Amino acid sequence: MTAIETVSEQACFGGVQGFYRHRSDVCGCDMTFAVYSPPQAKAGARLPAVTYLAGLTCTPETFTIKAGAQRVAAELGLILVMPDTSPRGVDLPGEDEAYDFGSGAGFYLDATQEPWAHHYQMESYVTRELPNLVAAHFPVDENRRGVMGHSMGGHGALTLHLKHPRLYRSCSAFAPIVAPMQVPWGEKAFAGYLGDDRDAWARHDACELLKQGASGAEILIDQGEADQFLTRELQPERFEQAADAAGQPYRLRRQPGYDHSYYFIQTFVEDHLRHHAAALGA
Amino acid sequence: MTAIETVSEQACFGGVQGFYRHRSDVCGCDMTFAVYSPPQAKAGARLPAVTYLAGLTCTPETFTIKAGAQRVAAELGLILVMPDTSPRGVDLPGEDEAYDFGSGAGFYLDATQEPWAHHYQMESYVTRELPNLVAAHFPVDENRRGVMGHSMGGHGALTLHLKHPRLYRSCSAFAPIVAPMQVPWGEKAFAGYLGDDRDAWARHDACELLKQGASGAEILIDQGEADQFLTRELQPERFEQAADAAGQPYRLRRQPGYDHSYYFIQTFVEDHLRHHAAALGA
Repeated sequence: MTAIETVSEQACFGGVQGFYRHRSDVCGCDMTFAVYSPPQAKAGARLPAVTYLAGLTCTPETFTIKAGAQRVAAELGLILVMPDTSPRGVDLPGEDEAYDFGSGAGFYLDATQEPWAHHYQMESYVTRELPNLVAAHFPVDENRRGVMGHSMGGHGALTLHLKHPRLYRSCSAFAPIVAPMQVPWGEKAFAGYLGDDRDAWARHDACELLKQGASGAEILIDQGEADQFLTRELQPERFEQAADAAGQPYRLRRQPGYDHSYYFIQTFVEDHLRHHAAALGA
Repeated sequence: MTAIETVSEQACFGGVQGFYRHRSDVCGCDMTFAVYSPPQAKAGARLPAVTYLAGLTCTPETFTIKAGAQRVAAELGLILVMPDTSPRGVDLPGEDEAYDFGSGAGFYLDATQEPWAHHYQMESYVTRELPNLVAAHFPVDENRRGVMGHSMGGHGALTLHLKHPRLYRSCSAFAPIVAPMQVPWGEKAFAGYLGDDRDAWARHDACELLKQGASGAEILIDQGEADQFLTRELQPERFEQAADAAGQPYRLRRQPGYDHSYYFIQTFVEDHLRHHAAALGA
């Protein structure tokens, strides 16, 4: 069993909020992640697990501190897994210069371009290395995993669910980037990590992936109508069109007055966790 | 009406989470505070308000971001008021050198010693200037105010309720400093802000104030048993003894496994807000 180092563990809603560090083989660096173990974990049962993928600039602490999710996870008996948003401290040139590329902005894909390819392998990390590591150390039912995320992490949740529907059986997103090939954040990241090959880009774009078929599971999306990135980066109508064309079940809720922040996320996180719990039989 | 500047306002649980700045006459500097206005505020009703006093090193953002309190306030129709923990940017020598004295550590008292006396007037700020300002700009029912707090802010909540029971009619605290005259944090702060006169200290010590009489209102206190400051700084048994001797109604709950953090606070904040709502007739 690969070792993990406990950074901290704190009581929260009868369960344990922990931060852990390990050596990542796929990212070639130390990685930190957070896990919330609900009180039901102490009883020895195998529990469903929901992975939350955070947005640009975030860390495993962001959702853990700001979303108020532990209360609901404790009620529903869900394990929550919060990975980091990129490799850290790998000293690539320019890695820390922009908020939307490099550290804090891994876009949940496996980079093919140098110098990023050697470390920025976040799809492999989030779909293979980390789930195995978490299942080895926490009582996860490996047949009941879901994925959710915000903004860049919403892009991650949608694409990784569509590409790995038997790994991540349920999916939801807050204000996701649904069509990264068509918007500035995605264009910059894909060009940097994947180069010029737009066929490669399409393998990491939710709207493009839907052309290859629906997942079958209903996807829940909340989008604030006062979101400052709505028209430039998010464009949820592109997801509606692609999902309708593909026959993908989804529920897209436009929330009047809400912006892109964690005040928006904390307002609707309970609905998302109940969506996952229902789909995963929690 | 004294002007306030809106720093930000964001939708949250159907209400508005705002940050505001104003010129404080009593502190002689600009001060920032946060207010959560629940959805009921839009209907024009006067609502009860609960002020949350934060602990050492905190700002108006700490509880606002970390406690998950807005969900409950929205349900109960409570306005939440989050003041800062000290004056800011007043350039006193040594102000920023220690985490437990000076900026971020105002201890909710009016300093009498130079150079602090000119700015560090947090009791007057929290019991006079800020309540009046908030009532002028938000639909507060001025007869239904409560106060709660954490650690140094728990000390503030207890002392300001006991000293101003008709202003702050309900009171609760998380891991409060109950006997500051007897513990290192309090001794350092009181010596610095109040000088050597221990009679002056006693006017800011909850256990000493109880010798002058009970408030009549039941005080709710939660204290984690794994709190790293339990035996040195907090010593809740001193409060039990003083409250029992004074005939002060209280409920002190020792919570096994919980530490001093906001994971502890978010676990029990709903109970505290329901305590205030019941006492204030929300």
